Amino acid sequence: MKKLSVDLPDKSYPIFIGQNILSDPALISPYVSGKQVMIVTNETIAPLYLEQTKQLFKDYQVETVILPDGEKYKTLDCLNLIYSALLTHKHNRTTTLVALGGGVVGDMTGFAAASYQRGVDFIQMPTTVLSQVDSSVGGKTGVNHALGKNMIGAFHQPNCVLIDIETLKTLPDKELSAGLAEVIKYGLICDAPFFEWLENNMERLLARDRDALIYAVEVSCTNKAKVVAQDEREGGIRAILNLGHTFGHAIETDQGYGNWLHGEAVSAGTVMAADLSKRLGWITQNDYLRIVSILEAARLPVDCPVGMEGTRFKDLMSVDKKVLDGKLRLVLLKEMGQAVTTSDFAMDQLDATLKHLTK
Amino acid sequence: MKKLSVDLPDKSYPIFIGQNILSDPALISPYVSGKQVMIVTNETIAPLYLEQTKQLFKDYQVETVILPDGEKYKTLDCLNLIYSALLTHKHNRTTTLVALGGGVVGDMTGFAAASYQRGVDFIQMPTTVLSQVDSSVGGKTGVNHALGKNMIGAFHQPNCVLIDIETLKTLPDKELSAGLAEVIKYGLICDAPFFEWLENNMERLLARDRDALIYAVEVSCTNKAKVVAQDEREGGIRAILNLGHTFGHAIETDQGYGNWLHGEAVSAGTVMAADLSKRLGWITQNDYLRIVSILEAARLPVDCPVGMEGTRFKDLMSVDKKVLDGKLRLVLLKEMGQAVTTSDFAMDQLDATLKHLTK
Repeated sequence: MKKLSVDLPDKSYPIFIGQNILSDPALISPYVSGKQVMIVTNETIAPLYLEQTKQLFKDYQVETVILPDGEKYKTLDCLNLIYSALLTHKHNRTTTLVALGGGVVGDMTGFAAASYQRGVDFIQMPTTVLSQVDSSVGGKTGVNHALGKNMIGAFHQPNCVLIDIETLKTLPDKELSAGLAEVIKYGLICDAPFFEWLENNMERLLARDRDALIYAVEVSCTNKAKVVAQDEREGGIRAILNLGHTFGHAIETDQGYGNWLHGEAVSAGTVMAADLSKRLGWITQNDYLRIVSILEAARLPVDCPVGMEGTRFKDLMSVDKKVLDGKLRLVLLKEMGQAVTTSDFAMDQLDATLKHLTK
Repeated sequence: MKKLSVDLPDKSYPIFIGQNILSDPALISPYVSGKQVMIVTNETIAPLYLEQTKQLFKDYQVETVILPDGEKYKTLDCLNLIYSALLTHKHNRTTTLVALGGGVVGDMTGFAAASYQRGVDFIQMPTTVLSQVDSSVGGKTGVNHALGKNMIGAFHQPNCVLIDIETLKTLPDKELSAGLAEVIKYGLICDAPFFEWLENNMERLLARDRDALIYAVEVSCTNKAKVVAQDEREGGIRAILNLGHTFGHAIETDQGYGNWLHGEAVSAGTVMAADLSKRLGWITQNDYLRIVSILEAARLPVDCPVGMEGTRFKDLMSVDKKVLDGKLRLVLLKEMGQAVTTSDFAMDQLDATLKHLTK
């Protein structure tokens, strides 16, 4: 088992990565301070891992909430199901929420923990590649609004993150690929050697080779922890973690949440960010082709949704959280393995990218 | 004009108290960091003070949200109206929300600010006694849940609090009295001389004597700021601000939000807390009668709702935020001017209070 650490000014916490660690109560008990536990999961994960997870907490008052599965349920209404369960079972300020599932479950459970009785503890048990390498680490929590993704939320750090690689055995292929979009991101934004490793090991990852998966998750989490430690509240450097996300969020909002998986939208968005970076002369045509090609190798979409026009992108991108006083800022690549957040591009260069890549 | 300061480890901010300060743009502009302002108010306050408040921000992009008036609208659904307005008008992370109204508007606007794009700035402009002396200061924000009051929320401090005493001219008598319940509270929990002043000046306050109101608001805010500075997150001493509130919240939840005003429920709850304090031998029968009598002088209810039984109180109080691992803690009076949070009472003493005061 690997143990990484996320070191923040007000709170540090461990990430455990290994096999079958969802069966070890001794590992988790130091991270539960009260006597009450509320496990939040969804309809897909519950039949697979809920009973096993409940066993981990058999010495506590444990209750469960089972949410519907999917990004389109990441709403205030579904969040209310968690609050209702907590109140019905009289959970108090010392309760610990446990997020068992993918990014949607983790984000919603984290925001419920941030806001129930003005803040209680929580633990992340991510069961998808995407949540293991990205959303479970760093304390971003929240829900979507019909007018914009992740627009309602809070920074709220978990007490620990437990990543059991065994849970990936049951992950659908489509979601495995979607998670790899975020894995590839780390290579692009801050870890060129890892990008090369990914180019050489994509087939092993798609075949769910256990050692390859553990390595990819570990390197991804190490990179994420490093960035978050420098900038917990995203005042600066942390924004680079959103490579491809401003374009990607626009796709998700346009298409309706859940019709494109988050990782799929990020993949197409990464191609757009790469295209603009190339137009600015920061990366080469060859770099651009390597990016398209690794995303294709991961069986991810590299084209925008048919019929989604450039003006629609610009309209949706104008409410992005990275807009500051009317100026759109984007995460772009200065070179392979180095991203920047910048508004230092002419609007007609963005227009050229949109014109070239939308249809 | 008076200027007080709330001094917290991470953020200090001023409270301005005076007459006609809602007409002074120079006072407020240092507390608005971006170019966008969203004024949140309600249907009752909008016709009275919205135009004047908009003038304060004429150099900014200013929009408004007008919520329905009343505690029963302090819900996730109404909160969503604020998010929708922010997104529709493309407000970004540098926006400033302005809460113009009473406690409900302040709590909801504060929570919207805490959670919109994971946290933006806000300013409190309280227009009721209750919000001026209590809810606008200290950073508690949130909404109600059908199963419990203020169960969803966050700690989020405003950039400043602007209290214009002139706004109390239009306050209904019933709400003036409800606010005085919180004013009296400060005397009881930490300021015996102020309690005596209130005993001697209640008629002036009810007659809306401007100097008396300014003095009462100023002393109340000073006391609140002092307590909050010692314990921002309510790990300890801050809980004394909830004298009468655990009983009072039970009344509000039982009766349906808004049928009893918060201050009215706190008044009846304060009598219950005083009765239990007397049974424990901490305050005298004479102290108890002084408490009942000042609340009556403020034209507040001192009796519980007819038909609300002791068992109903205990059931509703068991989900209170001050319950810790099954033990009910209450704020009680050690003596006049000194409150404690304690679970150091026998359940049959609480039962005796409930039996004596419910019917």
